[in-house]
Amino acid sequence: MPPDPLVRRLLKGDRVALAKLITEVESGSPQGTEALRSIYPHTGKATVVGFTGPLGVGKSSLISRMVGHLRKKGLKVGVIAVDPSSPFTGGAVLGDRIRLNLPPGDKGLFVRSMATRGQSGGLSQGTRDTVRLMEAFGMDVVIVETVGSGQSDVNVRDVATTRVVVLVPHLGDDIQSLKAGLFEIADIFAVNKSDLPGAPEAVRHLREMAGILMARTSWRADVVECSALNATGIEDLWKSIERHEEFARKDSSAREELAERTAKELRELVQHKMDERVRLLLSEDEGMQKLIQEVSEGRIDPYSGSELLLGRITGLPSKSPPKRKTTPRSAR
Amino acid sequence: MPPDPLVRRLLKGDRVALAKLITEVESGSPQGTEALRSIYPHTGKATVVGFTGPLGVGKSSLISRMVGHLRKKGLKVGVIAVDPSSPFTGGAVLGDRIRLNLPPGDKGLFVRSMATRGQSGGLSQGTRDTVRLMEAFGMDVVIVETVGSGQSDVNVRDVATTRVVVLVPHLGDDIQSLKAGLFEIADIFAVNKSDLPGAPEAVRHLREMAGILMARTSWRADVVECSALNATGIEDLWKSIERHEEFARKDSSAREELAERTAKELRELVQHKMDERVRLLLSEDEGMQKLIQEVSEGRIDPYSGSELLLGRITGLPSKSPPKRKTTPRSAR
Repeated sequence: MPPDPLVRRLLKGDRVALAKLITEVESGSPQGTEALRSIYPHTGKATVVGFTGPLGVGKSSLISRMVGHLRKKGLKVGVIAVDPSSPFTGGAVLGDRIRLNLPPGDKGLFVRSMATRGQSGGLSQGTRDTVRLMEAFGMDVVIVETVGSGQSDVNVRDVATTRVVVLVPHLGDDIQSLKAGLFEIADIFAVNKSDLPGAPEAVRHLREMAGILMARTSWRADVVECSALNATGIEDLWKSIERHEEFARKDSSAREELAERTAKELRELVQHKMDERVRLLLSEDEGMQKLIQEVSEGRIDPYSGSELLLGRITGLPSKSPPKRKTTPRSAR
Repeated sequence: MPPDPLVRRLLKGDRVALAKLITEVESGSPQGTEALRSIYPHTGKATVVGFTGPLGVGKSSLISRMVGHLRKKGLKVGVIAVDPSSPFTGGAVLGDRIRLNLPPGDKGLFVRSMATRGQSGGLSQGTRDTVRLMEAFGMDVVIVETVGSGQSDVNVRDVATTRVVVLVPHLGDDIQSLKAGLFEIADIFAVNKSDLPGAPEAVRHLREMAGILMARTSWRADVVECSALNATGIEDLWKSIERHEEFARKDSSAREELAERTAKELRELVQHKMDERVRLLLSEDEGMQKLIQEVSEGRIDPYSGSELLLGRITGLPSKSPPKRKTTPRSAR
């Protein structure tokens, strides 16, 4: 039984506890970190789906439809909006509920937007942590909305097992330049507004590309026609997501990717902690203040200075310790 | 006498040695780092000027004029183009020489563009290092060209003592949103294309703003009218740069800023070395491979995992050591 009452409430499905713990985690508080540790056994069970794609393709509308669809199935859904242009961002929760046709008190949906600033460990880590809190809360599905590849601080590959790239039939030249990048991240293409002219051609073209490129894994990107406006193709999209989740559980290349994601998270967590330690040392430690001054005044070079600092932090002698102080550079 | 023959040649003003050492430094080779250490006493003497500003204001043309002007004075000039849109970037050296009206063999000018990728220690550090190599080579002035504030990976404050923000009379709404950011970095405003209508108003307006904002230092931003096209105001701009350099040598707030820059460089150098160490450990160390696997499989949580990793790197016990392995989370 976790000692933190807030965590106990989270595990019982208390929405206030979820909101509070997300805030704790975002601020990097010790309570937040301890909560993440203690809930870890309760994570890894939800279907985590990333929705990404260029501006204006109707990502948020499609997510809204998907949420409504999943709620009808009785599945509990969390939505994390990392896209700053998302209507989910900025607390538009009431509006969303109206659009979603969900009762205002629906306890099976929780929407959270991630601020692009002020994430103590970076936006990717903030998103990973929030996914876990939502899983511990009891969400069956967590949907992460990010902007198109290369434009976001969060790489959708870092946080979601299944990645849906949303497109529309006529994206013009944009799609040409995006193509390679999209195929790198897409497990599924959702062609939204599939009632528009040109949709069959777009779908055929994407399927051809998927066949040719078939990436590194044995997964061939699905292409699903749908329409958020007309509420068509939503179940097809969900089935495709489930199919990919099943694949990811079994395929060896998908398992390798999971190991890569883990290594990346560990690296980022360690980097963040090291950064904090360096900052602290540089700002508070007297010896370090002296070192900064010596480098500022040109009495020691910054390369040797950083080796000394590194030795101080790690407690290990640096690989190439400066034998002596640098010859002072002449005063400016 | 430095042991590396390349460094000895650099200090004698050998251009080939300069080019080779910049490449060594960019690739992060031990020879590069050792060279930076040994040349350090020969650095800190040049006037390092940052030119920044929005696209299309004629930054590069103004720099070309300034280079020609300084060469006529007999000063040796280095140019580092960090702006990927700069005509200096991409090896347009011949074209530049023609535009500059300099003889093709002019040994008092060296232009180098910094690739935005592949800098082993990041673009800011690459720029700092290249400035130092140019100083050791014997440059009297080093000009660093970057794109406007907030759009660049290199903060012009990190590398240059005097920062020139280039503007044109009619920038429209852009200037409104940039204004605060520009006053934060500008020591001097160069109003280029000052023959265009609206120039006197723009200059008056900037001077008013400079008077009101007068920043944290006792320096009030200069506003200089010039025209790269008509080659007017170039000497005024240079005098303003010299005036600011003189100020920076004496003013206490400018000295504090130098200490901040030093601390930032040390922090970035240490971070870079730590990142390398973490990468190496994660990719080569067997114990770490096992840790990644345990986290991937959910047998240990990433937060405790990163603490273990941190302890491994620093040789110190982490602040909050995980008492036991996490309860395994259920298999997906």
